[in-house]
Amino acid sequence: MSNIKDLRIAIIGGTGEEGRGLALRWARAGAQVTIGSRSVERAKEAADELNRFVEHNPIGYARNRDAVSNADFLLLTVPFAHAVSTIEELQTYFPEGAILIDITVPVFFEKGARYVELPEGSASEHLRARLSENIPLVAAFKTEPAHLLVDPDEKLDCDVLVASDSKEARARVCEAIRSIDGLRPVDAGPLYSARTIERMTVLAIGINRRYKIKTACYRIVGLS
Amino acid sequence: MSNIKDLRIAIIGGTGEEGRGLALRWARAGAQVTIGSRSVERAKEAADELNRFVEHNPIGYARNRDAVSNADFLLLTVPFAHAVSTIEELQTYFPEGAILIDITVPVFFEKGARYVELPEGSASEHLRARLSENIPLVAAFKTEPAHLLVDPDEKLDCDVLVASDSKEARARVCEAIRSIDGLRPVDAGPLYSARTIERMTVLAIGINRRYKIKTACYRIVGLS
Repeated sequence: MSNIKDLRIAIIGGTGEEGRGLALRWARAGAQVTIGSRSVERAKEAADELNRFVEHNPIGYARNRDAVSNADFLLLTVPFAHAVSTIEELQTYFPEGAILIDITVPVFFEKGARYVELPEGSASEHLRARLSENIPLVAAFKTEPAHLLVDPDEKLDCDVLVASDSKEARARVCEAIRSIDGLRPVDAGPLYSARTIERMTVLAIGINRRYKIKTACYRIVGLS
Repeated sequence: MSNIKDLRIAIIGGTGEEGRGLALRWARAGAQVTIGSRSVERAKEAADELNRFVEHNPIGYARNRDAVSNADFLLLTVPFAHAVSTIEELQTYFPEGAILIDITVPVFFEKGARYVELPEGSASEHLRARLSENIPLVAAFKTEPAHLLVDPDEKLDCDVLVASDSKEARARVCEAIRSIDGLRPVDAGPLYSARTIERMTVLAIGINRRYKIKTACYRIVGLS
């Protein structure tokens, strides 16, 4: 991938706020984006709405399985509770070499936001254990607030922490993120780092609540 | 505490890089700082060295137990491996109402930095379980790079994530941090958040290694 215009991105379960937000940002960056959903109608609705804010290369829509079968990046944007079943259903349609990007965060609410402790240590590692070995998995966009991504008038100013056990996949995702206005990729190392990154989202939810805001996100200071 | 000049701060085990760094920054902010150590000589050495960079109110020195017995904030800056024994030895000397500030992070190295999983979930919660109930405990300064704090010429530009189950203690520590140039306190909520904050230090160590820097730290974007 050297040209963002050649990058085909499928947003799995892309009708939610995170999915639509990332579709919008990637489309504006120039990538070929398809919103996937179990319902073509809902995918079309989401794409139509977003395309009012995308000048060139409009966002496409398809059933999830059709969206993934023609993509380079597959963004998993379903709620964590449906992540495993979605992967189990779709992974036979993943093209060889396509990178699965997991943005899920397992969170529940009990006196504030709490992190769901999983035996593997994180949602990404939990998915990794259930995914065919030959599919590269990257954790990214976990700390980007959906409210911010989906608002076409909001300027972004966040770092995207990118973790994967595949150095190559990590580098490809980082490179592509550089095309999105206002987002900077930060190489967060192995998938193990998802344990931290996912918890940072839970921390940001708490900060949002205490500061009565909706868009807390992170910047790493000290990178040149 | 309304005037930083009235604030007495004891740095427990304050001869290490973190301890000296925080002594320097608090003294420059105007607080009355005492470096504590098991050895008065080493405490004096550290204070003398730092006082070359402090214009007014020089940093004092004392044995740990003498330092803590006359302080409002007690900063625990020993390595995590010595945190419990240090508290067990010193807590009878803590004055009533003094706040213990835990900056420790349990980390080990095995193919990079790894977080030591503790049964209580974090170092701060581990200490909380071993501390008299009436001593307020605050987790803070866990993500501030020691290299940055201790260098008198370095300007700071970091957020300090502050967590505690005592709202009052959290507010007092946040207020005092506002006096330090270049640091901004962020209310990170209950002590439970230490699970995230401590892991963020481990993540920053990895980022430092990958980016060949020493001073990665965090800013929360979106706070007004």
